[in-house]
Amino acid sequence: MSSADAPIVVLDSGLGGLTVVRSLRTAMPHEQILYFGDTARVPYGSKSAATVTSFVREIITYFLDRSPKHVVIACNTATALALPAIRVAFPHISISGVIEPGAKAAVEACGAKLEPVIGIIGTEATIRSKAYERAIHQRRHRARMLLRPTPLLVPIIEEGRSADDPLVSLALHQYLWPMIEREIDVLVLGCTHYPMLKTPIQALAGPNVRVIDSAERCAEDVARRLTSAGLLRSAPVEKTDPSRLLQCFVTDESPRFAALASGFLGFPIRSCTWVSTDELHERDRALQLRRAS
Amino acid sequence: MSSADAPIVVLDSGLGGLTVVRSLRTAMPHEQILYFGDTARVPYGSKSAATVTSFVREIITYFLDRSPKHVVIACNTATALALPAIRVAFPHISISGVIEPGAKAAVEACGAKLEPVIGIIGTEATIRSKAYERAIHQRRHRARMLLRPTPLLVPIIEEGRSADDPLVSLALHQYLWPMIEREIDVLVLGCTHYPMLKTPIQALAGPNVRVIDSAERCAEDVARRLTSAGLLRSAPVEKTDPSRLLQCFVTDESPRFAALASGFLGFPIRSCTWVSTDELHERDRALQLRRAS
Repeated sequence: MSSADAPIVVLDSGLGGLTVVRSLRTAMPHEQILYFGDTARVPYGSKSAATVTSFVREIITYFLDRSPKHVVIACNTATALALPAIRVAFPHISISGVIEPGAKAAVEACGAKLEPVIGIIGTEATIRSKAYERAIHQRRHRARMLLRPTPLLVPIIEEGRSADDPLVSLALHQYLWPMIEREIDVLVLGCTHYPMLKTPIQALAGPNVRVIDSAERCAEDVARRLTSAGLLRSAPVEKTDPSRLLQCFVTDESPRFAALASGFLGFPIRSCTWVSTDELHERDRALQLRRAS
Repeated sequence: MSSADAPIVVLDSGLGGLTVVRSLRTAMPHEQILYFGDTARVPYGSKSAATVTSFVREIITYFLDRSPKHVVIACNTATALALPAIRVAFPHISISGVIEPGAKAAVEACGAKLEPVIGIIGTEATIRSKAYERAIHQRRHRARMLLRPTPLLVPIIEEGRSADDPLVSLALHQYLWPMIEREIDVLVLGCTHYPMLKTPIQALAGPNVRVIDSAERCAEDVARRLTSAGLLRSAPVEKTDPSRLLQCFVTDESPRFAALASGFLGFPIRSCTWVSTDELHERDRALQLRRAS
């Protein structure tokens, strides 16, 4: 049985999932969050389903002894490639991803339009997986979809470039203009890094395009799940500094993570623990052996 | 004792090292090459020394039973962060990297100029390591150096963009123009991906700047080492298809590698074996246990 005081695990290939943490903080300010950024093996977006699934399994195994009340796969690629297999591997843990909430929000944003056009951008692996297409078609048969992998946006954001950098404008124009010309009604930001460029994307798309932030929608979805399960943590008597409720874990011990993370979060990180991929692998192997015996 | 018929191992984080393979082929057409691309954990350029060193150690361990006559670390980041520790870990294997040959060529290209100015571009980790600065200063005290991390160039190249793409021109201009304005004499391409953009880089830098290709120089260095050790493989009686002399190994089983690799190599890949990071880890662990007992 999960307790309301148990932590929420949020995992991502690197920094992008911190946009989900920021949205979770707004929706549920009292939760204790354990964030895992797999920075030694980032990015996931150019890798295969088998590889990404084994990475995610190792990360969840690492947190089993913390008995999380919920696990959020805060990465579109990992959700697209690994979520079904991961739910089978951990049947007793409540696990959610970013794609279903994003797809649901995209369909709602289409309103009453008869044949809406939905643009979707993401990593190569997310787009190739067709996960958004499936999730949207289940809800709305007649939506037309335009999909585009936008692999430079993650490295552009991780380089810390600002929205008014001419290279950012050119990359967004190259990737998005063909969709905007075809009069999309909705644009799904299918990668948790992309909310960092939401302002210039909305400016380029114009006021008639609804831009869907999958990080925000994912956080709302988690809040709804925990509320209906009676697992929301109640407010403490004294006001708590939000940075005390967040513990970060990374697989690479470089100084990059902490330096870039506050930009994603909106507040500084207090605690960041290095976990080697060797340790992840050993724990996963021990669990497989226990399960087999 | 190594034999002339033993293979050469070439390793890299991903595709970049294939530019070294192409240069090795030209310098030594009869060698058997085992290429390892760590595509499940690419890129190395944003990661720490501890992480990159453990990855390289695992890869060399994987090939120990093939008794390679030489190992080439065909990645500037891995050379900068891991080569000294890796030589200590494998004292009986001849191992070389890309930085020493690149630095030597840069100094030679300065000619008789009293205070030459050398520009160096590479990944964040390569630039932060100061490995090129040290290697150049050992040879030439009075060289001035301008260093710049250029983290977008690898993803731009891996996206398959052509040299005349406006985004490629803008990125090169942003990264290189401040160096060119300060009248560099030599520009070192300190990443084995960058030779793929050598033509537009040379065009931007102009005829007065000598552009040094670290992949080419690394291959010449390996040829010199094997020649002086009497370990060059002699020509077979019949002409061999170059693709038969190359076996590739990758850690991610996605279709990306084979699709992009021929562009780097200049000929198609025949054999590509998937090796999981779990297997790398297990073999490394077994070796550590044998050494400890």
